[in-house]
Parts: sequence; structure tokens; C-alpha cells
Amino acid sequence: MRKDLGAKPYLFPQPVMIIGTYDEEGNANAMNAAWGGIVGNKEIMVDLSNHKTTDNIQKTKAFTVSVADVAHLTACDYVGIVSANKEPDKMKKAGFTTTKSKYVNAPVINELPLTLECELIKVIDDSKYLAEIKNVSVDEAILGSDGEVSLEKFAPITFDTAHYGYYRLGERVGTAFKDGEQLK
Amino acid sequence: MRKDLGAKPYLFPQPVMIIGTYDEEGNANAMNAAWGGIVGNKEIMVDLSNHKTTDNIQKTKAFTVSVADVAHLTACDYVGIVSANKEPDKMKKAGFTTTKSKYVNAPVINELPLTLECELIKVIDDSKYLAEIKNVSVDEAILGSDGEVSLEKFAPITFDTAHYGYYRLGERVGTAFKDGEQLK
Repeated sequence: MRKDLGAKPYLFPQPVMIIGTYDEEGNANAMNAAWGGIVGNKEIMVDLSNHKTTDNIQKTKAFTVSVADVAHLTACDYVGIVSANKEPDKMKKAGFTTTKSKYVNAPVINELPLTLECELIKVIDDSKYLAEIKNVSVDEAILGSDGEVSLEKFAPITFDTAHYGYYRLGERVGTAFKDGEQLK
Repeated sequence: MRKDLGAKPYLFPQPVMIIGTYDEEGNANAMNAAWGGIVGNKEIMVDLSNHKTTDNIQKTKAFTVSVADVAHLTACDYVGIVSANKEPDKMKKAGFTTTKSKYVNAPVINELPLTLECELIKVIDDSKYLAEIKNVSVDEAILGSDGEVSLEKFAPITFDTAHYGYYRLGERVGTAFKDGEQLK
């Protein structure tokens, strides 16, 4: 039997994105964004309501998206509930340090092992920030022997909106077909 | 040490979305979409190149997004590699049956336990389909005692682009702060 739950944002799994920006004085900020996704080979969209972060993006035309992981769960959750407008030491209290991206005018959070460096393309409907991914910066510790991100070494988390819970990814359960044959 | 991987669509985790549509004769089709996400409380965006599915959406202004799960991994992968233009019996071969949505002109895939029923708002940059979520249809089998989707009962999958692998969600690893206190 199926049941109707109404209009809800229930897509699974969704990434937990930490948005990094600079203000006009070059101070780094970060916030936790729940809504967004990849929308092209080099494009990402993030839906943001008004924050210090959106003020910053309007000025710098750039932001980073770092992937929240199990190792930094508490810090990633913290930057989502505390505003830099109220807590100027937010980044320090989260335990985050930053390095300026070589590709865009936005900070890479050193502690988070995977970061997309993004340049704003346009804002759609006042809240949807469409950006071009200029580079992916990763900590070598999460790369496998093939030089790619290894989900055996990296543990991204996802958020369960209905229960305020974070879940980690689990084991590999299958392989996609490619060029007509299933890889094992 | 960090390393630059270049411009890649490496966000984790990303959902595996099965897009359901009707053609002009009311035949149901499904395809596997890798790129997209929630972009508002009742909005979803899916990036699609030209397919039978996009022809259908242009006509019906509607589609469904069902979440691929461990139990239907093979069928969900199959609809992503076979085109309905070449295989008219695609849905039957996948083992999928459908019921017309009560809310939009698109098919709900009976076998997949969670489906977003969506009405097209607009197409952005020729490939980004922005839609309003009109309803979420779920199989009662994946609901917990609180009436919400339970990740203990539902096992959505995510795709690892670099290795053509599907991963399931794992265990709960933490709880978000809410209204100033951490729920346990």
C-alpha cells in the first residue's frame, strides 16, 4: 500500500555541503547547506536563503563547497546553526582553518578533505546559486591507489531531515554496466 | 597534502534518480539520472541531456523522480543504459509496472518505494529541469512508527562515478542540533 506524504523535499541521499566564502575584508565564513546538487559535468547549484554567505557571494562571485564527513560531523553541524553575524569567531570555534583557493576568490577549508572550488554563473529565482566548478581540491589521504577519491577512505555523511540524523555511506552493493558489460 | 583533480562533478553523496514520464500515447518510460537535487522546500532540479524522457516532459510538463534502492539496483541500472527508442519493452524488461500519479501527468513506478511527483516549472539552459514537488508517494513498508520514511527500512543507493560502483547508506552517525540543543 502506498501513502501520500504531501509536498516534501524527500530525495535520498542528499549531500551535506559546507559553503565557504570571503567577506569584503577577506574574512572566511562557512555555512551548512542542505539543498543543492550537481547539475552538469562542471556545474553545481545550491539553494540558499539570505545569510552572511549570500552577501559574500554577491560581492566575490565565488564560493567553495566542501563535503561534510564523519570525521568533522560536529564542526559541520556547528557552522550550520551559528551565524557569523552573531559569532565573529565562528570558524575558529568550529576548528576550521582556511587557505585561499588558487582558482576562485573563496576559502578552501583545510580540515575537510574534498572541496569544489566554484565561480558564480548566475542566481536564479533569488535563491538558487548556479556555479561552475573550476577545480576539485582533495586531501591525498582520501585517494585510492588509482588516484581517485576512494569511498573506502572517505566517509561523507547525509542528513535525514525528518529525524535530524546524520548517516554515513555504507558498503558497495553493486556495479554499473559500462559499454554493454557489467564490471565486477 | 592536497591535490587538484581539475573540474569534476565530485559531490558526495549524490542520489540515483529514476525519472518516470509518459509519451503522447500514455506509454510509461523511465531513465536513470545522475545529476540533480533538491533546490527548495518543494522544488527539485534534474539535469538531462536529450532523451525520450525530455521529449516526453516537453509534452506532459511533468515527471516523477523515484529513488533507486538496493532492492531494485539491477532494474534501476538497466533503465539507465537502455533507450526506449531502441527497446519498446524497456519497462517490462526492467520488471517495472506503473500507476498514473493522482497529482501530475506522469507514472509512479509501483516497485520503487519512494517517488516525488513533479510538475515542470521551467527548463533552464536547455538541460536543467526545474519542477515543483506536488506530492511524495511512499510504500508503507518503508515508514517507521512515526509515519516518516525510516532509513532503517529503506536503503537508497548512491553512485560512485569514478569507479562505476553503487553504495548503500550505512549507519546513523550523529544527530543535528535543533533549537539550541542536541537531540540524542
